[in-house]
Amino acid sequence: NSNPHPKNTNVRISLPAVCFVWQLAMIILFGFFIRYNAESDVHWKQENKNISRSDIENDFYFRYPSFQDVHVMIFVGFGFLMTFLKRYSFGAVGFNLLIAAFGLQWALLMQGWFHSLDPMDGKIKIGVESMINADFCVASCLIAYGAVLGKVSPVQLMVMTLFGVTLYAVEEYIILNLIHARDAGGSMVIHTFGAYYGLSISWMLYRPNLDKRLNGSVYHSDVFAMIGTLFLWMFWPSFNSAISYHGDGQHRAAINTYLSLAATVLTTVAISSLSQKAGKLDMVHIQNSTLAGGVAVGTAAEFMLMPYGSLIVGFCCGIISTLGYIYLTPFMEKYLKIQDTCGIHNLHAMPGVIGGIVGAITAAAASEGVYGKEGLKTVFDFTGKWENMLPTQQGGHQAAGLCVALCFGIGGGILVGCVLRLPIWGDAPDDHCFDDELYWEVPEDEESIPPILEYDNHIRNQAG
Amino acid sequence: NSNPHPKNTNVRISLPAVCFVWQLAMIILFGFFIRYNAESDVHWKQENKNISRSDIENDFYFRYPSFQDVHVMIFVGFGFLMTFLKRYSFGAVGFNLLIAAFGLQWALLMQGWFHSLDPMDGKIKIGVESMINADFCVASCLIAYGAVLGKVSPVQLMVMTLFGVTLYAVEEYIILNLIHARDAGGSMVIHTFGAYYGLSISWMLYRPNLDKRLNGSVYHSDVFAMIGTLFLWMFWPSFNSAISYHGDGQHRAAINTYLSLAATVLTTVAISSLSQKAGKLDMVHIQNSTLAGGVAVGTAAEFMLMPYGSLIVGFCCGIISTLGYIYLTPFMEKYLKIQDTCGIHNLHAMPGVIGGIVGAITAAAASEGVYGKEGLKTVFDFTGKWENMLPTQQGGHQAAGLCVALCFGIGGGILVGCVLRLPIWGDAPDDHCFDDELYWEVPEDEESIPPILEYDNHIRNQAG
Amino acid sequence: NSNPHPKNTNVRISLPAVCFVWQLAMIILFGFFIRYNAESDVHWKQENKNISRSDIENDFYFRYPSFQDVHVMIFVGFGFLMTFLKRYSFGAVGFNLLIAAFGLQWALLMQGWFHSLDPMDGKIKIGVESMINADFCVASCLIAYGAVLGKVSPVQLMVMTLFGVTLYAVEEYIILNLIHARDAGGSMVIHTFGAYYGLSISWMLYRPNLDKRLNGSVYHSDVFAMIGTLFLWMFWPSFNSAISYHGDGQHRAAINTYLSLAATVLTTVAISSLSQKAGKLDMVHIQNSTLAGGVAVGTAAEFMLMPYGSLIVGFCCGIISTLGYIYLTPFMEKYLKIQDTCGIHNLHAMPGVIGGIVGAITAAAASEGVYGKEGLKTVFDFTGKWENMLPTQQGGHQAAGLCVALCFGIGGGILVGCVLRLPIWGDAPDDHCFDDELYWEVPEDEESIPPILEYDNHIRNQAG
Repeated sequence: NSNPHPKNTNVRISLPAVCFVWQLAMIILFGFFIRYNAESDVHWKQENKNISRSDIENDFYFRYPSFQDVHVMIFVGFGFLMTFLKRYSFGAVGFNLLIAAFGLQWALLMQGWFHSLDPMDGKIKIGVESMINADFCVASCLIAYGAVLGKVSPVQLMVMTLFGVTLYAVEEYIILNLIHARDAGGSMVIHTFGAYYGLSISWMLYRPNLDKRLNGSVYHSDVFAMIGTLFLWMFWPSFNSAISYHGDGQHRAAINTYLSLAATVLTTVAISSLSQKAGKLDMVHIQNSTLAGGVAVGTAAEFMLMPYGSLIVGFCCGIISTLGYIYLTPFMEKYLKIQDTCGIHNLHAMPGVIGGIVGAITAAAASEGVYGKEGLKTVFDFTGKWENMLPTQQGGHQAAGLCVALCFGIGGGILVGCVLRLPIWGDAPDDHCFDDELYWEVPEDEESIPPILEYDNHIRNQAG
Repeated sequence: NSNPHPKNTNVRISLPAVCFVWQLAMIILFGFFIRYNAESDVHWKQENKNISRSDIENDFYFRYPSFQDVHVMIFVGFGFLMTFLKRYSFGAVGFNLLIAAFGLQWALLMQGWFHSLDPMDGKIKIGVESMINADFCVASCLIAYGAVLGKVSPVQLMVMTLFGVTLYAVEEYIILNLIHARDAGGSMVIHTFGAYYGLSISWMLYRPNLDKRLNGSVYHSDVFAMIGTLFLWMFWPSFNSAISYHGDGQHRAAINTYLSLAATVLTTVAISSLSQKAGKLDMVHIQNSTLAGGVAVGTAAEFMLMPYGSLIVGFCCGIISTLGYIYLTPFMEKYLKIQDTCGIHNLHAMPGVIGGIVGAITAAAASEGVYGKEGLKTVFDFTGKWENMLPTQQGGHQAAGLCVALCFGIGGGILVGCVLRLPIWGDAPDDHCFDDELYWEVPEDEESIPPILEYDNHIRNQAG
Repeated sequence: NSNPHPKNTNVRISLPAVCFVWQLAMIILFGFFIRYNAESDVHWKQENKNISRSDIENDFYFRYPSFQDVHVMIFVGFGFLMTFLKRYSFGAVGFNLLIAAFGLQWALLMQGWFHSLDPMDGKIKIGVESMINADFCVASCLIAYGAVLGKVSPVQLMVMTLFGVTLYAVEEYIILNLIHARDAGGSMVIHTFGAYYGLSISWMLYRPNLDKRLNGSVYHSDVFAMIGTLFLWMFWPSFNSAISYHGDGQHRAAINTYLSLAATVLTTVAISSLSQKAGKLDMVHIQNSTLAGGVAVGTAAEFMLMPYGSLIVGFCCGIISTLGYIYLTPFMEKYLKIQDTCGIHNLHAMPGVIGGIVGAITAAAASEGVYGKEGLKTVFDFTGKWENMLPTQQGGHQAAGLCVALCFGIGGGILVGCVLRLPIWGDAPDDHCFDDELYWEVPEDEESIPPILEYDNHIRNQAG
């Protein structure tokens, strides 16, 4: 066989092995560690009667609608956003499903060990909030997927997700619990971490001879991608409010996100139109940069950011993100050797960092006049050992949290990138990236549809 | 340059200018006027403790799931419904996003000045209900977009939306507050107004030499449009119940809409099949007329319309709307010089008027026997200065409301149409309407996908 | 006319007649029988004040978000899942809408007569739970549609739905009320019944000379089908928890389903990759088998199945379902003469039966140690005449329920299959199955899009 291709992309042993073994491991670990929490356990109802509490006060009714919106963002939002490539839609939406389905199980365990381990029996107790947090954790890995879309094998994606979820759980614990930063919508914890994790991996896997013929869209694939864009755009208010505290916290987070995203759309369109010769819009900008405002308002979503504050954040992010697509992405590829298929640096990294900074400033500027004494306590959780914390201090802690997210993203990405460079994972050769053909049974072309003209005529005759 | 085209479609200055300046204006106006309302303000939780009210009684939990459904209707529903054109899917879904994102901000201001201005501090207080109302207001402008789809520039759409939202806020105030008509699902306020607004504009912008080669669908664009249809169809019960009063009001509005839409599907299919030679169905009817029942049941949705009443409304609207597509749309184009790309006259105008009439009749026929004394008060809001109103009087007021919606739609549309006829907006020439090429960077054709047969063979050999 | 086709597919009389007459019958029956229930009636609010109950305790707020998710599954989920065929997407999504819209009305009546007939006035009282149950009932008919997709006429589908809903209501009454089996997510009542109903009909309508040229996908139709897959996958937790009891019941059902589905994805990918030469994945498996875990966890969803139990169920079903597509579907066609277009035997029949068995085992194994005395009562509804029932007995009743579902499915399917073999329904000839051309006005091909190059050049010149 005189075939010149050096790479073996056959994953017939590695992919099933990884899926089977890891899923079996999940079952065993779940058996040892995971149980229903008080609100999903059968004893809740009984206990309810004793204290005359209404069934509607189960956390399920506070959070389940938001959970489902987040769930749609993870699977349809991220999945379809990446279908824009002309011949990688199966990989976009299919591998997205695969790694999210694995990631959420592993996230329930990792986050559980750090956050919801019951000291009484050593078990992790899960409920609707755990499901939201697992989805959040998975989001960071799907963001990272965006940087390497079309260039890695499904086995590499599973490895990326395994390590990504692990790193996420640790940085989340450090940022939220040890540093005591607040991050309702995860600008730092999810977006900054996830984006730099993916970019660092992409840097480690740099392909100088990448063939870009398939790295582009066709008309219909761009419309498919808009399904992803719109579900992300519409449900982002649910994302940023999903784990805020009950009542006005969730309410305010939703309003702030709704407004920020609206402003982003207008500035994205403005910059996109300005950047083209005849003022034409570029679908890449509309598909991605319109979402930057949701990322950037994440940390401060439940703070008293004020409606105009949300608009300002959205205004700036639309500009920065679109300019990033025009100038920064080509620059990064050429000079920094970072190939970023979906432009996650513009959609998640920069807006995530901005979100962290906005959160730090808003926290530092929080005053008793605006929040009230009790409000400060609730919003910033100044309780327990943090009882005497001041808003200005909180601002510093927010900034520290941002640094941790950056370090974990970059450091973790370089480490995992080293692992992924091993020649055992079945990744694509440079001249067959962005091609579903390698990992999917692709149906034949549309031209194979036979013309059935004669029969149609027959029907017309009948009808007469 | 001997190019024969007289029109300049370059929007590179006007579009960014409009987006930037208007968004900046929004930020300034929001800074002056818009604040969180009591239920999204940080003091709510504290106040809550004082009066021992549960967190779950925040209006957020009553309305947020419905808000998200409405949000999906606005962005995915309307956006994808209009992707049916073979080469205008970018414009459909992209401009829909643009004008909705601008419109909702302007609507929060306009509606706020009329409805939620706090007399204490002169600020507009917003919450989840304001977001729903802003989305509703935007819906009327998106309906109007349907009439001119493919024939106007994005700048014209922004102007249409600016005026449309303004007119909407005024007519809504007149109909709901001054005339005291009820209109839960907006048959009059949203659909009748929006449709006649769009039709009048289209009449003002009549193009006698319109090239219709691109005014049609291809197979896949019809499937994309069904995404829009279905999300509108499924979530319409949420639309009509989103701002009904808590409890049985929302419950009943959802049931009535659910039933009306079901009946509409059957009569739409019946008429569509009857109208074709061999009993074949027409996708245009299925995509649009199946929704007419949701429009027509809007005003009466929270009334005691009775399940069979809802079915009757849906039954009639499916017939009328489909007949409209078959006979009225071509008639209007030929004799009235109204070019209605999406057929909004059949989907929104006629069903909207029917909805207003149904509302008037149902209100006039309301009796204490069915509603109870308290029920009449609640459903028709017979409080304050309207305390002694009778159902029959209410019927008259409903009819008056319908007339106001019609007048504002037609009058406003003619006015705005005059503005849009100015030769400065960059609209398309007659022979290049319905073409994304003018305002979008369109990717190359599918044929450019290179065949990668040799490599595939290589893989097959490996696999052996 | 020397046309060789013997079959007349003209439905111009039969389809409109069926739609009109049946819809009229619905209106009349609704007029006689259907009224709002207490929670959607206008008197609820008044009554509320008397007993100082909060508005939020209306069942609407417990179930409406789940209802909307189920609604999306029925119309977008099932509808788009079936768009995978290259030339039957209109029929998939359009006929799905038609029969669901009719089926839900008939289901409200049939289920109402059995379950919610008010003995005081002889009326059926409907609310949000009735709407969910009607959607559930329709689901069984849409499953059946999957077996005969592309091979029957819309009139046959209407007949199938009429009888399907009727049979469903009876078997549901026998299984849930007479036998007192529990079936929250309908593994037996919906999936087992629906799948065997469809398979039996397909067996009765066996076509030995079926032309399969159009029985396959193209690239974009596979992506469309993934929309259906994902909305089913994401919202299945809502499906299985939609009519569970309030509080921990709904909460637990959602968690169990979420986990089961995640595990299914990994084993589906594993088996799919193993089954192909180079480890490539097959879209058919990803589109369908990834959902099997949701089916199989249906009956036991609200039981204390434990998180690891859910994972085990999902693990097994991914394997069995994918193996079914590889080995069983071709076997059934060749030797049992059952042509199953969508492979519902692998997605609904086998997982449904497994779900019934899992439910029986979990019920029989239920102990007071895990559930508590009150918990057993609530979860298994050991009240009234079933007060002294033991979990082991309940296990037997569950098994009995499964048998009833099987019998009704197979028996009913054979019966209805006989009716559908009458040569009056306008079904397709063997060589024109899977073709929208027969029942739809199909737009011309994409090639008809005219190239508009000259104008584009004009714009570029302008822009300079």
